[in-house]
Amino acid sequence: MRTPDEKIPVGVLGATGTVGQRFIERLAAHPWFEITALAASERSAGRPYGEASRWRLSSPLPAVVASLNVSAVTDDLPCRAVFSALDSATAREVEPLFARRGVFVFSNASAHRMDEDVPLLIPEINPDSLCLLERQRVRRGWTGALVTNANCSAMFLTMALAPLDRAFGVERAFVSTMQAVSGAGYPGVASLDILGNVVPDIPEEAEKIEREVAKILGGARDGSGGPAPIVLSAMTYRVPVEDGHTESVSVGLARKASASEVEEAWESFRGRADVSELPTAPSQPLVYLREKSRPQPRRDVDVSEGMCTVVGGLKPCRLLDWKFTALGHNTVRGAAGASILNAEFAAAKGLLS
Amino acid sequence: MRTPDEKIPVGVLGATGTVGQRFIERLAAHPWFEITALAASERSAGRPYGEASRWRLSSPLPAVVASLNVSAVTDDLPCRAVFSALDSATAREVEPLFARRGVFVFSNASAHRMDEDVPLLIPEINPDSLCLLERQRVRRGWTGALVTNANCSAMFLTMALAPLDRAFGVERAFVSTMQAVSGAGYPGVASLDILGNVVPDIPEEAEKIEREVAKILGGARDGSGGPAPIVLSAMTYRVPVEDGHTESVSVGLARKASASEVEEAWESFRGRADVSELPTAPSQPLVYLREKSRPQPRRDVDVSEGMCTVVGGLKPCRLLDWKFTALGHNTVRGAAGASILNAEFAAAKGLLS
Amino acid sequence: MRTPDEKIPVGVLGATGTVGQRFIERLAAHPWFEITALAASERSAGRPYGEASRWRLSSPLPAVVASLNVSAVTDDLPCRAVFSALDSATAREVEPLFARRGVFVFSNASAHRMDEDVPLLIPEINPDSLCLLERQRVRRGWTGALVTNANCSAMFLTMALAPLDRAFGVERAFVSTMQAVSGAGYPGVASLDILGNVVPDIPEEAEKIEREVAKILGGARDGSGGPAPIVLSAMTYRVPVEDGHTESVSVGLARKASASEVEEAWESFRGRADVSELPTAPSQPLVYLREKSRPQPRRDVDVSEGMCTVVGGLKPCRLLDWKFTALGHNTVRGAAGASILNAEFAAAKGLLS
Amino acid sequence: MRTPDEKIPVGVLGATGTVGQRFIERLAAHPWFEITALAASERSAGRPYGEASRWRLSSPLPAVVASLNVSAVTDDLPCRAVFSALDSATAREVEPLFARRGVFVFSNASAHRMDEDVPLLIPEINPDSLCLLERQRVRRGWTGALVTNANCSAMFLTMALAPLDRAFGVERAFVSTMQAVSGAGYPGVASLDILGNVVPDIPEEAEKIEREVAKILGGARDGSGGPAPIVLSAMTYRVPVEDGHTESVSVGLARKASASEVEEAWESFRGRADVSELPTAPSQPLVYLREKSRPQPRRDVDVSEGMCTVVGGLKPCRLLDWKFTALGHNTVRGAAGASILNAEFAAAKGLLS
Repeated sequence: MRTPDEKIPVGVLGATGTVGQRFIERLAAHPWFEITALAASERSAGRPYGEASRWRLSSPLPAVVASLNVSAVTDDLPCRAVFSALDSATAREVEPLFARRGVFVFSNASAHRMDEDVPLLIPEINPDSLCLLERQRVRRGWTGALVTNANCSAMFLTMALAPLDRAFGVERAFVSTMQAVSGAGYPGVASLDILGNVVPDIPEEAEKIEREVAKILGGARDGSGGPAPIVLSAMTYRVPVEDGHTESVSVGLARKASASEVEEAWESFRGRADVSELPTAPSQPLVYLREKSRPQPRRDVDVSEGMCTVVGGLKPCRLLDWKFTALGHNTVRGAAGASILNAEFAAAKGLLS
Repeated sequence: MRTPDEKIPVGVLGATGTVGQRFIERLAAHPWFEITALAASERSAGRPYGEASRWRLSSPLPAVVASLNVSAVTDDLPCRAVFSALDSATAREVEPLFARRGVFVFSNASAHRMDEDVPLLIPEINPDSLCLLERQRVRRGWTGALVTNANCSAMFLTMALAPLDRAFGVERAFVSTMQAVSGAGYPGVASLDILGNVVPDIPEEAEKIEREVAKILGGARDGSGGPAPIVLSAMTYRVPVEDGHTESVSVGLARKASASEVEEAWESFRGRADVSELPTAPSQPLVYLREKSRPQPRRDVDVSEGMCTVVGGLKPCRLLDWKFTALGHNTVRGAAGASILNAEFAAAKGLLS
Repeated sequence: MRTPDEKIPVGVLGATGTVGQRFIERLAAHPWFEITALAASERSAGRPYGEASRWRLSSPLPAVVASLNVSAVTDDLPCRAVFSALDSATAREVEPLFARRGVFVFSNASAHRMDEDVPLLIPEINPDSLCLLERQRVRRGWTGALVTNANCSAMFLTMALAPLDRAFGVERAFVSTMQAVSGAGYPGVASLDILGNVVPDIPEEAEKIEREVAKILGGARDGSGGPAPIVLSAMTYRVPVEDGHTESVSVGLARKASASEVEEAWESFRGRADVSELPTAPSQPLVYLREKSRPQPRRDVDVSEGMCTVVGGLKPCRLLDWKFTALGHNTVRGAAGASILNAEFAAAKGLLS
Repeated sequence: MRTPDEKIPVGVLGATGTVGQRFIERLAAHPWFEITALAASERSAGRPYGEASRWRLSSPLPAVVASLNVSAVTDDLPCRAVFSALDSATAREVEPLFARRGVFVFSNASAHRMDEDVPLLIPEINPDSLCLLERQRVRRGWTGALVTNANCSAMFLTMALAPLDRAFGVERAFVSTMQAVSGAGYPGVASLDILGNVVPDIPEEAEKIEREVAKILGGARDGSGGPAPIVLSAMTYRVPVEDGHTESVSVGLARKASASEVEEAWESFRGRADVSELPTAPSQPLVYLREKSRPQPRRDVDVSEGMCTVVGGLKPCRLLDWKFTALGHNTVRGAAGASILNAEFAAAKGLLS
């Protein structure tokens, strides 16, 4: 692993939102990165971040960040890399501008995730998808690059399935999600809609899960970037939980596996050495809990500071092979934390020098 | 339909609990039934109900009920029928005592639901299962009888599947539930366990759903009482909702059906005439909502005063055929309301004269 | 009481919001009023109400209302009276337009509540404040009129204090509120702000409570419309409750009173005969609960269909004289229901013929 | 300050409950103390703690603690000091047994708080109350000692008032609390009672607040242990918040003070040097937030790891002098953390050698 000689100047696009704030929180004391620019919508541009943003995380807003002036998202920022927490429509326009100017964009937006020449990267699972950047540069003529991370719900499902796919082959999966309100940003879900309630059908979420999991596992299988031929069906629900998406999963395998084989596949799962050494990589990307009635968002969302996926409740499924519950922190490993780990991986490969 | 000439004297077993209170609320002004006895645990026996019970429903406790003295559940009660809200272990012992004494027991307990000679009755779906009572009497030598209703989650799933089974044949189904806290009784779920949380694996719930749905649909198909050979897989979750179980369902059909055929099957579904005329039968047992992001427990749990099942969000499933969301009121149609409708059906058949 | 010969045509301004929907729900089957117009912001104007509004109440949207076309709030509406659920700034501009055109405006907005010639009316408490309309007409040259109801929190506090003021004289009071999210409209409070949280200092709320209670009780004392010289101090909090404001109150009296005298004052409190006969007047405007730990929003908010104020937990206060808890339904008696009762009172007085 | 030469062996009484778990969490890595015994009710005694207790904190249960065998609370434990999280009735019997045997008892129970010879200690406020131990030994013939901490709500109110009392004299105060469910232990508050609800009148809570604040501030004024003649009135409410009690406070002062003088009194408040150096003493016992609508439990409960009291929203009160909001972590500074700080103070004074 190459450790950067000097801190790499980075920016955050969409810095005032829920995910933007998580980026800032996790970059503020980062050993490799240094925040040199924050960009947000017109309304915020030109004002100090501390005034323009209403900080909502329980950790205090770092003073040095509070005094940074907010730029417009179309500005040319003094950064080697930017982290994008933009909404999809803005990301579609703005992210290529940065890549064209030579900046590395690590994006949490869905806009370009499914583009053939854009890595949809989870370093522990499909590290070689970073090689797509060569094709991306040739094809688009960019001097920078664009790397995306998965949708939050897709992230945790992929994490739970990847060890099983590697060991036994995943053929089919059914997932029903129970997603936290922080996933909808701020102000996001109105309290009148969610207090004591469950709301079905988060717009476009099921589709993202179905296609992104297939793309990532396809990359993990052969690195080609084509989607794995896994038949996946997702349903999505919003529940009155602040942080942490819970997923009810049933999976059908190509090769039958016993409960202990499934557990062994999960518990032994690690990223490659060049990934597990990264500064914010969790010691175990996947934690398997043997206690009953776990994982639960309130109890387990902060395992490994929100960077790992937690699974539990393994039971035989009468329809497919196995069913279980998966959980992850939607704004950490499911968003900001994922992009930062991607950036660390790129930096360790020398791409950000 | 035979309307009883006089009000039928009935009792409630387990009268102080969450479901017991719902029985009382719904029987207090019933046109056919009159509460003449309330029974509960030793601790409550001998005291006026108003003192022994901490009433928790938003409707006021009827004064005539408040002054009734609570009996022990083993007492010989002056009733033609009793409604049982007992826990399963007590029900196993106590319910046969009443049936032996000549009393009709309409039970919400799971203890005897799967017994071959015990009707697991949903009048709109398997009305002929009431004929099992003949076999029950012969075999057990009872002068009374025991009729059960389904587990709350099984109830709503069966309601949603029955029209599809009748029209197209149901072969397989996957369900993931998000269940309200009132389903766990009182005090039930500790607030520290469920505020802002989701708790997987409600004990024994998945098993009940899997076997009860098969038994009821089996009865609906041929009246024999044998389970339908449907492959069913359930996962269960508790969520911070007061009333109303939401279910994420995917179903595989024997004969392919279009979306409009599925909708038509749901919207045209009615119970037999001798059922739909019963005093508390909903005008439509199944309501299909076309609005997006519905049904939701807070908005839709009280449709038809909690007596119907609400479905919505129909979408093609990449794994089976169709997926959708179902919802019902767990302590009304999923418990007390179901037993009372069963009793009305028995009364209309002249069994309680 | 004069019952109108024909239904009086009425409109709702701000018809798509939380309070606007309550107005519609409660006017839809009203014996005296008939909805003939609905007005809302530019965005909604010109579309059928069923399309323009996202109905959020658990009662179904009346079909006849769903098909009404939404007007702009500045339009000349075919109504004898309008109910205003406008925000304060819009109300300040728009409500006088209607009054000038000859329309009676019954307003839930705060804009004109403290105007000297505008009744801040609670029929059970200060019915004679309706006489201010003469002064209003003379002074403003209106052929219509403007009548306001109190802020929701002020309403319940005034209701709880009025019987004590009448019997013993209220000199001082301290109130700390715990207010439901529906009071903030829709989308209103973001779920990320309120799930598992308490938010102090609802903007401008304490000031409204302090001045409105004094104005209403002043009118009750002598009808002059001048504020009563009561020293009142309010603090306000938002809590994760859907409907129902709970208030912690301590009161100092001019004449000392025993607990039973206070209880007697509350329990015997009734509006004048010409008020208690109105169609939606609660049989008792104030209900006193003797059970411990009551009132509670979830259990008691719907007493008298949300039209009464519920008090309980009376205890001696070491600082003033008595302390207790008050509760009311913020969008019913605290908003739409209050305005409708005001309109009924005006109609019974022959003002709307 | 004397730092202990060796770790002091300590035990926890009532180790399986909500507060007991907080004691364990905070003692597990303590620089001065070492857990050598855990005691709980009969049901748990004799089993390893990891089995006997259902760990509910989000931090993991320390492995060394999980393997400790649970003792009965009446056992003679190998400890120099014990921390008591017992209920009041048990504490009344059991705590003196330990003190008699020569053990220092640091108790969170209310049983002995108001005894004249028992310190009700907040080291930053009334450190000299520890001198009561001499009288306690003489009078009771104990070789150990009993030191108590305040009720959680009393703790935060005292913290907020103490700087004002020192600077201006506090004469009167009104407080209305909004308390978290963790304050009621486990299982504690049933979810059916608190979801979307507010419950008035926590039993005996108002009385504890009124008398404990007076005792502590009395000790702070003159060390005599007699209560300060402050007129205090408290009302208490339970709200659906997991951790953190919020308090609405109004205070009357002996000497008038401006807003900036009040703020200055709060912001400059520190414990004595021999207190502020203790291992878990917060750098500032009282934090004043100038942002609007703060403090809030979800955002501010973990300031200084839950060891400080947070105040905000200062406004003039029309009834007394000033009103504001106070907040603290009820199971940390309001319970376990308070007792541990007391023990550190006693240890620094050489009492535990």
